[in-house]
Amino acid sequence: MATAGKVIKCRAAVAWEPNKPLVIEEIEVAPPQANEVRIKIVATGVCHTDLYHLFEGMHKDGFPAVLGHEGAGIVESVGPGVTEFQPGDKVIPLFVSQCRECRFCKNPKTNQCEKGWASGRHDMMAPADSRFTCKGKKVLQFMGTSTFSQYTVMNQIAIAKIDPAAPLDKVCLLGCGICTGYGAAVNTAKVEPGSTCAVFGLGAVGLAAVMGCKSAGAKRIFAVDINPDKFGKAKVFGATDFVNPKDHDKPISQVLAEMTNGGVDYSLECVGNVTVMRSALESCVKGWGVSVLVGWTDLYDVATRPIQLIAGRTWKGSLFGGFKSKDGVPQMVKAYLDKKVKLDEFITHNMTLGQVNDAIELMKHGKWCVHTFSTIDDLPASCKDEQLTSVCFVFRPQHPDSPECFSTMTPLCCFQ
Amino acid sequence: MATAGKVIKCRAAVAWEPNKPLVIEEIEVAPPQANEVRIKIVATGVCHTDLYHLFEGMHKDGFPAVLGHEGAGIVESVGPGVTEFQPGDKVIPLFVSQCRECRFCKNPKTNQCEKGWASGRHDMMAPADSRFTCKGKKVLQFMGTSTFSQYTVMNQIAIAKIDPAAPLDKVCLLGCGICTGYGAAVNTAKVEPGSTCAVFGLGAVGLAAVMGCKSAGAKRIFAVDINPDKFGKAKVFGATDFVNPKDHDKPISQVLAEMTNGGVDYSLECVGNVTVMRSALESCVKGWGVSVLVGWTDLYDVATRPIQLIAGRTWKGSLFGGFKSKDGVPQMVKAYLDKKVKLDEFITHNMTLGQVNDAIELMKHGKWCVHTFSTIDDLPASCKDEQLTSVCFVFRPQHPDSPECFSTMTPLCCFQ
Repeated sequence: MATAGKVIKCRAAVAWEPNKPLVIEEIEVAPPQANEVRIKIVATGVCHTDLYHLFEGMHKDGFPAVLGHEGAGIVESVGPGVTEFQPGDKVIPLFVSQCRECRFCKNPKTNQCEKGWASGRHDMMAPADSRFTCKGKKVLQFMGTSTFSQYTVMNQIAIAKIDPAAPLDKVCLLGCGICTGYGAAVNTAKVEPGSTCAVFGLGAVGLAAVMGCKSAGAKRIFAVDINPDKFGKAKVFGATDFVNPKDHDKPISQVLAEMTNGGVDYSLECVGNVTVMRSALESCVKGWGVSVLVGWTDLYDVATRPIQLIAGRTWKGSLFGGFKSKDGVPQMVKAYLDKKVKLDEFITHNMTLGQVNDAIELMKHGKWCVHTFSTIDDLPASCKDEQLTSVCFVFRPQHPDSPECFSTMTPLCCFQ
Repeated sequence: MATAGKVIKCRAAVAWEPNKPLVIEEIEVAPPQANEVRIKIVATGVCHTDLYHLFEGMHKDGFPAVLGHEGAGIVESVGPGVTEFQPGDKVIPLFVSQCRECRFCKNPKTNQCEKGWASGRHDMMAPADSRFTCKGKKVLQFMGTSTFSQYTVMNQIAIAKIDPAAPLDKVCLLGCGICTGYGAAVNTAKVEPGSTCAVFGLGAVGLAAVMGCKSAGAKRIFAVDINPDKFGKAKVFGATDFVNPKDHDKPISQVLAEMTNGGVDYSLECVGNVTVMRSALESCVKGWGVSVLVGWTDLYDVATRPIQLIAGRTWKGSLFGGFKSKDGVPQMVKAYLDKKVKLDEFITHNMTLGQVNDAIELMKHGKWCVHTFSTIDDLPASCKDEQLTSVCFVFRPQHPDSPECFSTMTPLCCFQ
């Protein structure tokens, strides 16, 4: 490749400081070092975790940075020691690594690799390990991925090689939200055939959770949201019943208990609101009900009365849907190609990279979250802004802690 | 039997009203009705749940009553429709029923029979169903059992027939505390061989949990208590390490994480204190740690940050150790007779029924909880107070919500 071993100049959306719009800049992307891979990003979503870092995060020193963690692309070149990837491979960046060597990777019970960017060990691309510079300044890596750039450099433990037939502007969604929701149902809750489920929050993650429940053979899937506009879409993914808490004077847990002879077998909270988390747990049947936290917030404690657990309920959480990332993402890509999981149905509109701030504003205030895509199949070596073209709207709404926002999305920016 | 079909007059400790000492009275115990069994109680423990009803419960209308739910005895006579029991059978009263017919009994995931006294269905002996009268007044049943009486009448769905070789003044402990702690480790946490465990609170339930962890093959068992006097006893039951939170300036979860490369695989809260419940959860390793609430309180919420669960921990609760009661208690009796579980080691002293208020005072204020036993093997038909003789002290201390009380016991008096 003509660019291998050289610094690539390309366009990226740079977050120079908190609470400010991103700026489309020309940046320099240095060649990959040992165990690293440089990836030409073809498509990327905007996810609430990007906004969380920009507007709410406690990482005030995390700037300037290139945000973005829900992308798909093509390997441009590899650094020393990389044998798993070669130029031209289609890949999905992973914000959860899978080193295959640590005690977490070797344990089938978890997908939380010890070498992740957030673990403090930083074998994955830690913020300061980025290969980005702009206007003479170091620009930091975000979540190990930094997909709001035409090129990014990542550690090989955090990249999944996928089927060459995969359309990158669709499967990029598997880099975060869809795996998160689907896997929470299938891997974490372990929904059983014939069971009754409730999904709280019908953003992309919640809709993916509905799809996961359906795939696992759930007999009845309650879709719960305060925005009735979501119910039509939820049906597409397999929901059988719709409950709008605003239609009831009783607590939603009581409403669901009455509709299900005592409560659902599984509930999934896909909002990131601690009050909804409690409702989701308490909507489960005693004895064996399992409730999974999928939504994310670290602003408040989540609470319940001890009896809710002593009565036999189980409270769990899910990160990236419990998928061991390198193993799981290619499987999900195959499931999409085999038409066993839906992706296209999550997408409503596209936007350009130049519109990224519009996308962010829409995500902050609008009904839908926004996915930014670059269609890069025909990207020339010297990139221009307008060549990062597509952005899609998906069913992922607003701010998780605003009262009007019941359904939102999920991902995590830091975890213990 | 000479007494079958007749009212039996016998001695019992009657709780006439809240917050008052029990009164040893002569009471009348009517014959068992359909599906009921009259049991000659041979031995019974005092458990904190008895005190909870007497001093803290919200059931101000639950008086007068005969307390007690951790007993063992001999069938005196049976009512119509009872084929499982006959006079002379050794039995243990069960505060958790097992009807074998409801959807809960048919589901292997739970032991919480739908027909229990606390479910509102009251197929088990509900308070008003008691066959007790005293001085012309109805005396209520407690927890379906009411073992502070020389005779009690119970529904057959809440009685376990046990090995005739079982010493009733020992196996009565299996009616509550020991099954609760042991089963929480074995059945609810499902402790795995080679794992690392932490047990918070070294009362009888906590010690039984230690024994359960040991029995399940745990490699390392941390016994956590603020009373170092407990550590010697914990070693008897299998503890390998002892941690006194008072010896450390750091949170106990951090202390345990440092001692175990990130946290224990399993933790069991055997106190009934919501702060300790949180510590126990947060002492678990991320990825796969499982924490079980065994202690009981319904005065406060239990809380944590969502990340604690999203990072892969599981929060569960256990009632009667997850044992399906009719099945599990005879198995535990057999395990005791086969010397696979210890019971004698929990007992330190005995007391008479006439000393029941002394026992209660000791339990409220002292280091050890108290078990009241009646030795009834030679009990004549006309019972006298002094013939209810033995009371044992077991390792079960104080009030769960008092700050000085770190280790206490567990059982439940009402649950959803």
